[in-house]
Amino acid sequence: MAGDEPPLAKFKKRHIISMRDFTKEEIDFILEVAERLEPYARGERRSNALAGKLLANLFFEPSTRTRMSFETAMKRLGGDVLNMSGVEASSIAKGESLADTVRVISKYCDVIVLRHPKEGASRLAAEFSEVPVINAGDGAGQHPTQTLLDLYTMKKELGRLEGLKVALVGDLKYGRTVHSLAYALSLYGAEIYLVSPELLKMPPEIKEDLRGAKIHETSDVKEVISDVDVLYVTRIQRERFPDPTEYLKVAGSYRITPDMLEENERLIVMHPLPRVDEVDPEIDRTKYAKYFEQAFYGVPVRMALLVTLLEAEV
Amino acid sequence: MAGDEPPLAKFKKRHIISMRDFTKEEIDFILEVAERLEPYARGERRSNALAGKLLANLFFEPSTRTRMSFETAMKRLGGDVLNMSGVEASSIAKGESLADTVRVISKYCDVIVLRHPKEGASRLAAEFSEVPVINAGDGAGQHPTQTLLDLYTMKKELGRLEGLKVALVGDLKYGRTVHSLAYALSLYGAEIYLVSPELLKMPPEIKEDLRGAKIHETSDVKEVISDVDVLYVTRIQRERFPDPTEYLKVAGSYRITPDMLEENERLIVMHPLPRVDEVDPEIDRTKYAKYFEQAFYGVPVRMALLVTLLEAEV
Amino acid sequence: MAGDEPPLAKFKKRHIISMRDFTKEEIDFILEVAERLEPYARGERRSNALAGKLLANLFFEPSTRTRMSFETAMKRLGGDVLNMSGVEASSIAKGESLADTVRVISKYCDVIVLRHPKEGASRLAAEFSEVPVINAGDGAGQHPTQTLLDLYTMKKELGRLEGLKVALVGDLKYGRTVHSLAYALSLYGAEIYLVSPELLKMPPEIKEDLRGAKIHETSDVKEVISDVDVLYVTRIQRERFPDPTEYLKVAGSYRITPDMLEENERLIVMHPLPRVDEVDPEIDRTKYAKYFEQAFYGVPVRMALLVTLLEAEV
Repeated sequence: MAGDEPPLAKFKKRHIISMRDFTKEEIDFILEVAERLEPYARGERRSNALAGKLLANLFFEPSTRTRMSFETAMKRLGGDVLNMSGVEASSIAKGESLADTVRVISKYCDVIVLRHPKEGASRLAAEFSEVPVINAGDGAGQHPTQTLLDLYTMKKELGRLEGLKVALVGDLKYGRTVHSLAYALSLYGAEIYLVSPELLKMPPEIKEDLRGAKIHETSDVKEVISDVDVLYVTRIQRERFPDPTEYLKVAGSYRITPDMLEENERLIVMHPLPRVDEVDPEIDRTKYAKYFEQAFYGVPVRMALLVTLLEAEV
Repeated sequence: MAGDEPPLAKFKKRHIISMRDFTKEEIDFILEVAERLEPYARGERRSNALAGKLLANLFFEPSTRTRMSFETAMKRLGGDVLNMSGVEASSIAKGESLADTVRVISKYCDVIVLRHPKEGASRLAAEFSEVPVINAGDGAGQHPTQTLLDLYTMKKELGRLEGLKVALVGDLKYGRTVHSLAYALSLYGAEIYLVSPELLKMPPEIKEDLRGAKIHETSDVKEVISDVDVLYVTRIQRERFPDPTEYLKVAGSYRITPDMLEENERLIVMHPLPRVDEVDPEIDRTKYAKYFEQAFYGVPVRMALLVTLLEAEV
Repeated sequence: MAGDEPPLAKFKKRHIISMRDFTKEEIDFILEVAERLEPYARGERRSNALAGKLLANLFFEPSTRTRMSFETAMKRLGGDVLNMSGVEASSIAKGESLADTVRVISKYCDVIVLRHPKEGASRLAAEFSEVPVINAGDGAGQHPTQTLLDLYTMKKELGRLEGLKVALVGDLKYGRTVHSLAYALSLYGAEIYLVSPELLKMPPEIKEDLRGAKIHETSDVKEVISDVDVLYVTRIQRERFPDPTEYLKVAGSYRITPDMLEENERLIVMHPLPRVDEVDPEIDRTKYAKYFEQAFYGVPVRMALLVTLLEAEV
């Protein structure tokens, strides 16, 4: 990847499958475009930059937040969206190969957003699609637009991405979100605190990939709070534990409450949502809480990606 | 609520939860705007007054008529809509609090329309939403836009709202539609005939609230037909009756047939739909039948509300 | 149907229920309009010809391809779409007559597209609709827009429709697609090869209707390949066979593989999709394969129909 070509040109007709497909310069470029588009995302300014363009949401698993924020991103810029209903998804899943579905639907639209329960589905879809495919989560695999909006949230709320101290808390074994976020943070020389129960530690092969980062590991969230800029909390799922009482004990000790945060004035709390019980609602209206704003930032970040992939000008 | 402020100003960024939130002046204002917007609702005139605006339909119970008429109202005025699929609704219902859902989705749109099985859901949603919430039915609670379109139908078809004689027929105990319609009619000095089987009589606390109205009660629909301007028929649900033969007897005696209407030339028959068996299809093509027109009137009335809440100019 | 009136005038406000409602001149007209609209269907040119127009997709059975291509056709021309969700469809199916549903929804839109499991549903819907109804498949009945796109594919890929040699392969007994395609081809003096297992032969009453065509019948697909211009393959469903081993034997002998095609250079392979196993994926990237292009052609053909019915100018 030659550095002299402008990032825009390199996005032309490209698929967005994994954070590993992005250079740091490309991430910076998308985040800058996102910042410029924020007033459009908030509905404060209007544009028809994507008029006549169609995005197809192919969600083989439900995901209201991701699907709707893509839809809002298109529609706030004058574009439009084709959605697949749940019944259609299950009917397709039974009767037809993903390759055939993608081959046909890519003829009806300008970009496909795919959420699929099987790892690798997006890579496969990209092979057969005539238009760019954006991976919106494939099983235990990747979900790159989530990572982009996570980075955008940190940049907006903390003013920078270089050298942040970020605690990733909760399920670090199965959570695809934290895997690609950790990778992306490592590009920016982050200091990463991996905070999880023993059973849900980050797998060694993921850790090995974080060369640019300084890594700490612990199972005690209280220990790290005074050190970090970001507490990135994820859900610990009951079904990961063989023993329900063990689950309850662990989940309880990873629950973030307002009193835990008092000692660190500059801290922000993030969460990819939905949350169940791991962030106390008492935190919602404090200055620490950035998870709802984070959900909003999905709109400008996805706008930036769509505008770039579809070569539109805003 | 001071009378000198124009009604429009008082709607700014407001939630629409219950008919009790409206003054009579405000109802009149909405109905007047609706009348002006009818040609747009019929597709005879075009406008882009809501271009760039997004409505999110959050339907946790299916309701094609209500949802689609909101969607038509937005789209005929150049706006756009985010819909939640049934699968998403049930997935959200399982995994996340309504407060969290509303907090996030209100960041993706300009107005939320909520249908929810639990009474009070809309009031709760309004607390957490950054944009106006319109209650499109919450359990046994309220459904104000249905009442507005019912009033609009009477005004259009009978030329006035003051002092109408209206028979409410069928299930007056559980039907939320008739409760808020009776309340609204009482503001216009209506004479209200409550016609229901003993088991499904209007609850005393609702009746007490109809101060401006003259109330009659009976269980015999034939008795009132020659007196009234409007026969507002609702469905009697089988599951309200402990005994199926009792249900059949009652349902049969509340079924409206063409011969019953002959004695009253000026009468109109209304129904919130869907109907099952309570209005004979033989009535459909007579001059009495206004229930399909009533369903259409949902479009201009919802347009009027949206245009007012979103401060658009048509 | 007088020949001097221009075809356009005869489409005004008309329902599209069956291929038998079309004259040959009208088919030609629609295909010509489709050809002119292809650049819009591909997103290469933009138009707002259908701005302000609403199409309601009423799909009581899932059909992603048909539904989405109608949606793309509307949206690429600036129009918009109301979709019914799967949950709504089943809720309506339980609670309300199709006549009532159609009567109301036809007041919310400018054209209805109906897919329904029961034969004759579209004809019934047309009786109660205030706007044109397009049949998108009703049980074992008709699916005229599929036939129009099949004809368009042949015309585009082979340069003409007159006197083609077309093999219809697979389930010729229950497949509604092949029935109306055979009828339409007969208008163009086709030579039709009916290729099916004994159990799934084309019913005599359908065959009798193909007066303009020369008909051959066989159960051996290999026998006809060197003679024909088009191999139109359809799925053979397992449930048609009382005995699973019998099914497997038959399905195997109707599976099209690349080696079978070598002897005929000019041949094209078509399929209404979805396919399961009846066309070997090895054929996909050969010059024979036209089934994905065929799926795309649904967009310009449906555009042509919509533009004509809604009297728009592109």
